Amino acid sequence: NHPVALIAGPCVMENEAHTLAIARQLLEVKNELGVGVVFKASFDKANRTSVSAYRGPGLESGLRILDKVRQQTGLPIVSDIHDVSQVEAAAEVLDILQIPAFLCRQTDLLLAAGRSGKVVNIKKGQFLAPWDMANAVAKVASTGNDRILLTERGTSFGYNNLVVDMRSLAVMRELGCPVVFDATHAVQLPGGAGTSSGGQRQFVAALSRAAVAVGVDGLFWEVHPDPDRALCDGANSLPLDQVKKTLKEMMAIDAIVKGNTES
Amino acid sequence: NHPVALIAGPCVMENEAHTLAIARQLLEVKNELGVGVVFKASFDKANRTSVSAYRGPGLESGLRILDKVRQQTGLPIVSDIHDVSQVEAAAEVLDILQIPAFLCRQTDLLLAAGRSGKVVNIKKGQFLAPWDMANAVAKVASTGNDRILLTERGTSFGYNNLVVDMRSLAVMRELGCPVVFDATHAVQLPGGAGTSSGGQRQFVAALSRAAVAVGVDGLFWEVHPDPDRALCDGANSLPLDQVKKTLKEMMAIDAIVKGNTES
Amino acid sequence: NHPVALIAGPCVMENEAHTLAIARQLLEVKNELGVGVVFKASFDKANRTSVSAYRGPGLESGLRILDKVRQQTGLPIVSDIHDVSQVEAAAEVLDILQIPAFLCRQTDLLLAAGRSGKVVNIKKGQFLAPWDMANAVAKVASTGNDRILLTERGTSFGYNNLVVDMRSLAVMRELGCPVVFDATHAVQLPGGAGTSSGGQRQFVAALSRAAVAVGVDGLFWEVHPDPDRALCDGANSLPLDQVKKTLKEMMAIDAIVKGNTES
Amino acid sequence: NHPVALIAGPCVMENEAHTLAIARQLLEVKNELGVGVVFKASFDKANRTSVSAYRGPGLESGLRILDKVRQQTGLPIVSDIHDVSQVEAAAEVLDILQIPAFLCRQTDLLLAAGRSGKVVNIKKGQFLAPWDMANAVAKVASTGNDRILLTERGTSFGYNNLVVDMRSLAVMRELGCPVVFDATHAVQLPGGAGTSSGGQRQFVAALSRAAVAVGVDGLFWEVHPDPDRALCDGANSLPLDQVKKTLKEMMAIDAIVKGNTES
Repeated sequence: NHPVALIAGPCVMENEAHTLAIARQLLEVKNELGVGVVFKASFDKANRTSVSAYRGPGLESGLRILDKVRQQTGLPIVSDIHDVSQVEAAAEVLDILQIPAFLCRQTDLLLAAGRSGKVVNIKKGQFLAPWDMANAVAKVASTGNDRILLTERGTSFGYNNLVVDMRSLAVMRELGCPVVFDATHAVQLPGGAGTSSGGQRQFVAALSRAAVAVGVDGLFWEVHPDPDRALCDGANSLPLDQVKKTLKEMMAIDAIVKGNTES
Repeated sequence: NHPVALIAGPCVMENEAHTLAIARQLLEVKNELGVGVVFKASFDKANRTSVSAYRGPGLESGLRILDKVRQQTGLPIVSDIHDVSQVEAAAEVLDILQIPAFLCRQTDLLLAAGRSGKVVNIKKGQFLAPWDMANAVAKVASTGNDRILLTERGTSFGYNNLVVDMRSLAVMRELGCPVVFDATHAVQLPGGAGTSSGGQRQFVAALSRAAVAVGVDGLFWEVHPDPDRALCDGANSLPLDQVKKTLKEMMAIDAIVKGNTES
Repeated sequence: NHPVALIAGPCVMENEAHTLAIARQLLEVKNELGVGVVFKASFDKANRTSVSAYRGPGLESGLRILDKVRQQTGLPIVSDIHDVSQVEAAAEVLDILQIPAFLCRQTDLLLAAGRSGKVVNIKKGQFLAPWDMANAVAKVASTGNDRILLTERGTSFGYNNLVVDMRSLAVMRELGCPVVFDATHAVQLPGGAGTSSGGQRQFVAALSRAAVAVGVDGLFWEVHPDPDRALCDGANSLPLDQVKKTLKEMMAIDAIVKGNTES
Repeated sequence: NHPVALIAGPCVMENEAHTLAIARQLLEVKNELGVGVVFKASFDKANRTSVSAYRGPGLESGLRILDKVRQQTGLPIVSDIHDVSQVEAAAEVLDILQIPAFLCRQTDLLLAAGRSGKVVNIKKGQFLAPWDMANAVAKVASTGNDRILLTERGTSFGYNNLVVDMRSLAVMRELGCPVVFDATHAVQLPGGAGTSSGGQRQFVAALSRAAVAVGVDGLFWEVHPDPDRALCDGANSLPLDQVKKTLKEMMAIDAIVKGNTES
């Protein structure tokens, strides 16, 4: 029953300086609040809505930047992989390999991630019931790797909308894995802006509070110094300067729920 | 930004002694925790799944019992009305007239409830978006009565299941009405048991914590001294002896969220 | 395995002349195509989105108009009832009493309709699985009346949208009742226009063809000589002058599906 | 406005003889009914529910078998690809490259498929609105390849269930691509059998009739000589000996809907 940790960073790496600046600010939050922080940024957005959307620096450059983040900040690093061919290189730099929600049933990707020996964070597909994640867990576990995280990021609810079924956090915890709540993608409006996904940043804090109140091991927030100019998912990213204050509130609720408010 | 209050009681009145005993225990909870408590019990379950299910003591006997509850405990009373013809008698005894979710668009019922001058608690239909409740509010408000509560009790999600979209609590609060979260009916599995609805009592506390963390004005729990023998909705009722402990946790989260932890 | 019949008419009676004119045109369709036609119009729209929307002529005037329709056209008549108090008067004029979808679990209304001895058309709630209609059927049948129709009109699918699960037509037919497909309300966008429901008239014919191809006993279309000026549900009403042509196509598909192409 | 065609075959190739036998029977259907038939079988099921489920003969052996099918029957061949690395080999044998529903937003896969110059059949994700497929089409079309099919296979509807929104067939046709209805996967109950997906074979014909009545260019049926012993998706596969009779009914409805009843 550890205190809640934070996985955070920009949706996609925009460039090296930008990425490092964000990471340093997250390190400060970590130090000031005494909270676990994992840095997250994508090197390639492989499933953007539109073919002409920005995808990122690519595998090689992206991993090089993430490696610098780790060296300069000491933060553990997570990024998402999309293809078996990426696993080896990614595992050299990353602490956690993340399986995107759309790919959470791709057996080969799960097996390759498992075999890397790294922690594997499987995002629950928008099309899956929480109990169905037992099968995804079993795929990774079949490699002998049981360091598995499960992430809730919302479930299909009609068209161009997602809903977070808070029961799923409890159901997935029963599977024996730490559970992360990805508030950023949970408030996405998929395809809601025509050639890109819309988002409802205004609900990130409220849904995060709800998830922490149910009981989770981690929160996942995409953050940006200026979300309205972000190259990806700005509509649902949290402004970087709100992270500390928002996270503090989470920690207070988490302490009550986990019964470790020291008296 | 008042502290969260509790609406609680048995789903349906089983008999006078039983109803009074529950009410007295809820009064104790109120006194021990210093929390607002409203007593709720139905006199008639007008839309049970099966025609042969127990419906309750009926309007006249039911109101007589509820009147005794009020006199003996001093708790304010809420019950649900199903028909314009019930409003006058109900308004003589009840403090809050509750509009069932299935009936939340029945204009005449909303108008009659509004004209009674009593507080009106409108439950959001399982088939409605939270912003659509603006129209239900406008119907009641058109009578000059603006003492309106809105209650979230889950939204249709596939068959025989409901999901709570926690965003709806924030959306409905924007309509200017206090918002109640009905955890009992939110964990109903409608029709899920063939000739009755199933329920998932195990999620009542977790979803209630989540709702309080988002921010609500009230919680609604059906309670029973022995839920497995309840004549209605036992599968999702909270055991009476767990109310105090569970409510205390809610109050702690509520205090953090509303910023009124005394420093 | 009778040929498909049509239930049609304006959503709500706008006035006597208007109602009679529509009925006469439907009678012509019936005579020209040799198809069963039932006339439908509401005397009171009891659950309009907005309190200021037009509701109709009311019970008394409405039934008087419907009685004239029957006398002048000989068409059987269906209309919806919302309250037990309306059943007796309605049963004197109507051939079929229709239970609105939101009210399909209101036990007293179902029992009163059943006791009238008239055919009862129960619309499936947007919040119900098709198999759950067995309980609604049992309520009516408990009165000794087994002349029951079931109508599909779409199921909640996210917010402000409905989806027609074509499987439900087959599932409900297994319950032993003739099944009607209400294409008009199936293409409603509930609350989709803010203070009224939107609609997608352009899908009425396509969904009707689909339902007939699955196999149904009746189609339900709201029709209007000038849908854009209709006082209710214009967005999803079929223009009156398209009824004959559209219905002919349905009859051709129906004949194939029911294997009675050759006479 | 061509007559409806059929894409059919076993879910997965079980072995060469078995695959060829099915193909020969489909060729007979084609010849007897004068209908377009495309042969479909997977060489690798890359996203089975369980890690221990049968996956198929693999890329190399699978393509070899499919090549034999083409040579022996002359039927055009479609199979699904899961990874950019498979495209080149697949394009040498296949006429149509199929993008699995879960992968319909994977930009690189869509681009590689497009660049092959082959027809690309994109299955609509269970998590996507039909209009969102415009973005998937644009990805393939950006390669200069506009030979694109879109396939409907159901949409997430609560947990462990899918619903077919028949409107989506009309919406996707507006995008300018031929539209296929995959009845087999539309009646899947994803994860519904614990460690595998359940299925509702009994609705394949009814939903296919509905889709044809709405108007489609193709039907997609997985077929098997003995579905209960199939190594994959048996619960929703059509028995091979029912294909001809069922398809004949589809052709009759299709002829009416497309107005080409008289020759």
